[in-house]
Formats: sequence, structure tokens, C-alpha cells
Amino acid sequence: MTIQPRTLKGFRDYLPDEMIPRERLMETARRVYRSYGFSPIDTPALEYLEILTGKGSEETDRQLYRFEDHGGRQVGMRFDLTVPLARFVAQHINKLGVPFKRYHIAPVWRGENTQRGRYREFFQCDFDTIGTLSVSADIEMVLVIYDLMRALGIEKFTIRVNNRQILNGLLEKLELTDQSTAVLRALDKLAKIGSDKVMEEMVQAAGATREQAEQVLQLSELSGVNRDVLSGLAPLMAGSQTGESGLCRLEELVEGIEAAGVGQDNFCLDVSIARGLDYYTGTIVETFLDDLPSIGSVCSGGRYDNLTGVYTKQQLPGVGASLGLDRLLAAMGELGLSEPTRTTAPVFLAYFDADRLPDYLRLAGGIRAAGIGVELYPDPKKLAAQLKYASARGFRVAVIAGPDELQRGVCQVKDLAARTSEEFGTCPALDPLVDGIRQILEKHESPAG
Amino acid sequence: MTIQPRTLKGFRDYLPDEMIPRERLMETARRVYRSYGFSPIDTPALEYLEILTGKGSEETDRQLYRFEDHGGRQVGMRFDLTVPLARFVAQHINKLGVPFKRYHIAPVWRGENTQRGRYREFFQCDFDTIGTLSVSADIEMVLVIYDLMRALGIEKFTIRVNNRQILNGLLEKLELTDQSTAVLRALDKLAKIGSDKVMEEMVQAAGATREQAEQVLQLSELSGVNRDVLSGLAPLMAGSQTGESGLCRLEELVEGIEAAGVGQDNFCLDVSIARGLDYYTGTIVETFLDDLPSIGSVCSGGRYDNLTGVYTKQQLPGVGASLGLDRLLAAMGELGLSEPTRTTAPVFLAYFDADRLPDYLRLAGGIRAAGIGVELYPDPKKLAAQLKYASARGFRVAVIAGPDELQRGVCQVKDLAARTSEEFGTCPALDPLVDGIRQILEKHESPAG
Repeated sequence: MTIQPRTLKGFRDYLPDEMIPRERLMETARRVYRSYGFSPIDTPALEYLEILTGKGSEETDRQLYRFEDHGGRQVGMRFDLTVPLARFVAQHINKLGVPFKRYHIAPVWRGENTQRGRYREFFQCDFDTIGTLSVSADIEMVLVIYDLMRALGIEKFTIRVNNRQILNGLLEKLELTDQSTAVLRALDKLAKIGSDKVMEEMVQAAGATREQAEQVLQLSELSGVNRDVLSGLAPLMAGSQTGESGLCRLEELVEGIEAAGVGQDNFCLDVSIARGLDYYTGTIVETFLDDLPSIGSVCSGGRYDNLTGVYTKQQLPGVGASLGLDRLLAAMGELGLSEPTRTTAPVFLAYFDADRLPDYLRLAGGIRAAGIGVELYPDPKKLAAQLKYASARGFRVAVIAGPDELQRGVCQVKDLAARTSEEFGTCPALDPLVDGIRQILEKHESPAG
Repeated sequence: MTIQPRTLKGFRDYLPDEMIPRERLMETARRVYRSYGFSPIDTPALEYLEILTGKGSEETDRQLYRFEDHGGRQVGMRFDLTVPLARFVAQHINKLGVPFKRYHIAPVWRGENTQRGRYREFFQCDFDTIGTLSVSADIEMVLVIYDLMRALGIEKFTIRVNNRQILNGLLEKLELTDQSTAVLRALDKLAKIGSDKVMEEMVQAAGATREQAEQVLQLSELSGVNRDVLSGLAPLMAGSQTGESGLCRLEELVEGIEAAGVGQDNFCLDVSIARGLDYYTGTIVETFLDDLPSIGSVCSGGRYDNLTGVYTKQQLPGVGASLGLDRLLAAMGELGLSEPTRTTAPVFLAYFDADRLPDYLRLAGGIRAAGIGVELYPDPKKLAAQLKYASARGFRVAVIAGPDELQRGVCQVKDLAARTSEEFGTCPALDPLVDGIRQILEKHESPAG
């Protein structure tokens, strides 16, 4: 009797054609995070249930995978990387010291309703700076996102920035502080449902007057170059300590980001974005792809005052963002920024003459020693079958040597895309062959490399 | 009320000083696997319970983390990457095609007894070639291990190779086939308990005669250069079809590995190794560190006939190995092959003059644009405090510019290990500064880079 091979509902396998671009994206993220001094950490998939419950929303509590372990402990699978970060920092802060800059790329689990097209296992890819209030860390968050997008070969993107204190300051002035959650929830929908419906929600769900709602919506009308937005804000914030402090912070932020060379094409103030999550207290960011705004923000985050409050009395502020891996991968596919491939090595070496496996092994070893990945076909099948395999997998170059060529100390090098072929020498050294391969590969360099 | 921040028994956090070398090791493994055309895949952490149970040992069944999910399904957390590979291949083989070469680096979970110093969550790092019987794939397994060790900066290691058919052939000739599991289990302990005790176990637990046991132990006396072992085996295998086929395969294997340039220092036949796992049917390998043999094999694997038998009638042979990440990391630490560090960026940039954050951001951006990672300290604290932080984290270089230096367009570049300092220009371009930093970094290049 055989057991039907299948994955659980809401879970998925990643085949090479999906996993290769995922790995590439994660590697690019790591490289960029590291270039700013963020360090990797990891935490267990399982935590004590009490560590996880009540830290997200009611929804995440309901979705939590929970059970009793072998020792009778109540445990749960992590549903995000923020709660484990808070627990981790509270537990190890004396050893870690501040500023503590970490990144964490790992799977999380939520028993989501799969009808919404969501998966129950997905990767998060977060970076955060803990233990400093400096605007420098806020600026760096934006710079990391900027470098990351460009490292991925994306040029048309906009990082939208705001500060929660701007919103809070205005709500203070309008005496809407008590209704702030409901008002901001409505405001957050602006891009999706338009200002009329937001207005309606503010009045009906949040209990604002039409006049108050109109004043909140004024924020969304402040646009243009960043300097103009800042000057437009000044009168709106005047008199509110919170608002003025937020504005001052935004000014420093804009100055730093511009000094670092980020242009207005890729960065703008959008003082109407609120981001739902309650815990943000300062800078907030969202990142949109100009050619595909409908998929939403691909990298979002912000500043929070107190990461570890549940676990320790020590107050630790932080700032950081999370890259939406799945969303970004889908977008890059749609925008043609990820080349479809099922192979990790660019060169295919045909195994042609059954008796000369050692010669093929030597060839493969020599090409690899030159830093070029090569897959040797394992069986001496007909050349047509091998080349069919090579093309289907997406190899760039095929190296072919039959008995005659091996005898003469040469190889055929085939550019599989251009369908051209040329002969190169392999004796006494492989240099001509390696140069020939390199020439073809350089023609095909992909932006996201 | 605060909740005590703690990890579950048997689980652990990875702080940067532990995670940085782990990530480096995984990256090296990926790079080597890819250079042979292995592709990454991933599978869910959770599987239907029926997929997981009965596929490992009674022990793994007992250790399985299992529970009922939100939809009333019986599910379990994967306890290795081999069972998910089998399920994956059975499910997708028509799409994947053969040969299918994959690697998979991911966590697995076992409710182990922690008194044995084992963790309940650990990473596996496997590579396998599915769908070919060619000896070329067996050879490649050894070459991958060889390249991997060297890429990690390890030179003194020995890959020990055998073929199960050698053992099976001898047992056939000795009419011990029915007792083979018990005999091989005893033989496997040779290095640990010595030949007298192995002999005793073969007689008492496996029911062999002393004479039979002596003949099995003869295998362990075959040593010396590989050619001598092969000639010594010939008479022992003569007359057994299984044994002769195994010997022929070993000869091809040795020829291929030697042709690829692997010397006898790093590779030897050891016809007494058996490896406990029942499913191996051909080539088997173990890898020992010459300076630390007591930690056991750091990379082991072999050939198996039928990976997917439980899930499909299609028979798919495979060959592959698993890198023992934790063991290897511990060993590299002990052998001084991993440099202790808590930072991912080599350069530290002090933030000295509170009013000139934009200048520091520009400096950091310029150094990064030259491909060198740099961490900007977020707060304009006293220089002594910043340099203390930089030294504790293990930065190689500190770049320091106070108001006077910024004015003059220069920076102090400090080699933090050598405690020397030199001034470099930053105007009109950063080139002198970048060159100065590079000179220090090149002095410190680590082997495992």
C-alpha cells in the first residue's frame, strides 16, 4: 500500500524554479543588511505559548498553531518575528548591548483562512535597530530599503515616509485623540477606497464630525516635493507639542536621506499614511513599486517606543522594517525582473563517451576551479537527449567533447540561447575553454546577479 | 506583570556571535552545492502525520512533534529532510524530471532527551542526486564534500568510502545474510570499541561463529593505499556476484575521484565502515577531521535504491550526503578555523559631531558604494565609548572624523587590531580613504571568508 504524497492545505513546496529566485532575494537582503552592520540571529520555531499569546492581534491569537509538547508544556509556533525579537532582546540584552542591530530571515506560521489566498507558512525578512532614539537609525532604515530595491534591479519604486507624531499632533489639536485608532484605521484605507468613503468611515465608525474629518483629510492633500510638504505642515502642527516634534524629526529625516543621495524619484513624504499597527510611535515607511502599486507595500516598518515591555521593565526603543518576500517575488516575476531558471550552475557538460568519465571529471573540476559552476550529466546518453535536458533547465552554456575532441584536446562550447557554437582548446591548460565560457556568460549577466 | 522571557527546554537562540559563523557555513555549502548544479528546494515544516510516521526509526516516531491542526488534521513537524524529499520527489517527479539534483538547508524537530546534550531543533544541510544509477553521481558526492571542506578552510580531513555490496558480498559468502543487520551494527562500532568487543558482539548478539566473525573483521585489516585495498579485496569477493559488483563499482569510484585531483591525504577506502541506516545499498561515505576524529563524521551519506517506495510505485534511486552543521561548527571553533566576531560589517564609522549627521551619512554611503560594509554609530557619544563598542564587536577598522577633520576633508583610519592610525583624504572623492581601508582589510582576510 502506498501513501498519497501531498502537502497540507495552505502549505506549499518550493521547486527549484521558485526556490532559486527566493534564495537570491534572501541573499541580496542579507548582503544589504550586513553592509549596514546588521547581524543575523535566529530563534526557535516553538515558544512557550504565554510568550506568543496576546502580543499580536486577536486574529493572530486565533491563528496560532498550539499544542502540548512531550513534557506537557503548552507551546506555539511563532506567528511573526517581532514577538520572538522582543523576547530575545529582553532575555539577552545585557550580553547584546546597544545599539543592537539584527536581521532575521525565517519562516512563521499562521492557521490563516486559505480562501483569502494566504499561505499558512511564509518567510519574514526583518531588520531592526534596538536601543537608540537617534534619527540616524530612522534614516538608515530608509537607506537600507533604497539599497535593497536597487540591489534587486528595481529602479522604479517609491519609499513613502511619515511620522506618527504628525497624525497624533493633528488629532490632539482636533481633540480626536480618544478616537485615534478608529480615525487612523479609516485614513489607512485612503489609497484603496478614496477620500469620500474615508470621510464617511471617520464620521460613522470613529465618531468624528465632518469638519474634523475634513481637517484630517487635509493631510492627504499636502503633496509635491518634500520641502513643500514640510512647509505645508508647519501651520497644521503649530501649537501641538507632539506635532511640532514630529515635524522637526521629519525635517531631520529628509535632510539625512537627501544627503545620502536618495532622490525624490524614490522617496517622498506622504503624511496621510498611518500603518495599522498600534505599536508604531514615530517614523513610518511603506514602499511601493511604481509599475505595480496595486500589490501594496513591499517593505514596511517604523519606529516603536517600547519593544520589550511585556517581558522586562527596561524600556528599549527600536526602529525597523520587514521585507515582503512573497509579494516582492510575485512582483518581480510580473515585471520581468527575475529570469526563469531551474539551474544554479550556468554551464552544462555533456557526458558523451562512456569510457572517459575521468576526462569529463577533470574538465568539470577545471571549470569549477576557475569559479564557474558546471553540472556534469551523469549518464552517457545520446547528445540530443542531454541537450534537451540542458535547454529545459535553462543552462546558458553547453560544453561538448566526444572521443574525437577529447583526443584532440578541444571542446565545443555552445551558447544555448544564441544557438552558436565554437571550439576551444583544453591542452595543456583549460584557459582558452574557460575564457570562451566566460565570454558567453558575460553577455547574459542579469541585473539581480 | 511581566512574563519571564525564556526559551523552551531543548531549544536555543542564536546570538550574532553564533549565527554569523553558521550563516557563513551555510553560504559556503550553498555555493559549493550550486557549483555542481544542485538546486535549492524547500518543503513545509508541517506534514500530514501519515507522511512522517513509520519512515524513520521507532525512536524518531516517538520523538515526533505531533498535534491536531485547526481543521482537525493530524499533523507533525518534520524530523529530517529525507522523508520530505521522498514525498516531494514522489509528488513532483513528472515536473522535476531526472536527474534531479537538490539541496535543502532547513530546521528539523525532534523531542529528544536533552540529557544527551541534544537539541530539539537543529538544521540539516543535505544534497542528493535522484534518478541515476551512474557512478558519476557517487563520485560527485565525494567531490562535493572535498570542495566543501576546502572552501571552509579545512585541509586535514579524510573522506572514508566503502560500498555496502562489499559487506553484503562477504556476508553472502559466509552465509550470514540473515544476520546482516546485527553483524553490521556490531562492525559499525569498530572504531569506538575495538575488534575484541566487536567480535564478541557478532558472536553473542548476531549469532555468528568466531570463525565467521574473524573473516568479517579481516575487512578492517585491509588498509594502505587505495589500490592495495582493492587488490586485497579481490580474493575476498571472488565468487560472490554482489561482492564482485561492489568491488567493480569501488574501482570506478577510486579512478574517478583520483582523476578529479583528490589526493590520498583526503580520501581513502575503509571497507569496514557500514553506516547504520538500513536504506543504503551502494557507496557509503563518512568524513573525519584528522585533528579531531573523536567528534565523529562531519559529513556522511551514501547511495540508496528506492527513495520513494512508500509514496509511489515508480522506483527512484539516489545518492547524497548530509553535512553535520552543528558538529562542524563546534569543530571549527575548537580548531581555531572560525574567527570570533559579532559584526557583519568590517568598518566602524564614529558619529562625532552631532550637527554633521549628513556628512557621516555621505561618508558611510561612499564606503558602502565601494563594496565595503560600514556601521555608523547612531548616537554622537564620546569617542572612547564608541571605540569601546567597536572593539567589543570585533570591527577591523574604525573611521573617525571630528569637526576639524570634516572641515579639512580628511578622516582618521584606525586599524583596531594593530592599534595604528593614519589620515586619508575624502575630498573631492573618497578614493584615498577607501584605499586606506582596503589595505587594512586585506591584511586580515580570513580563510573561510
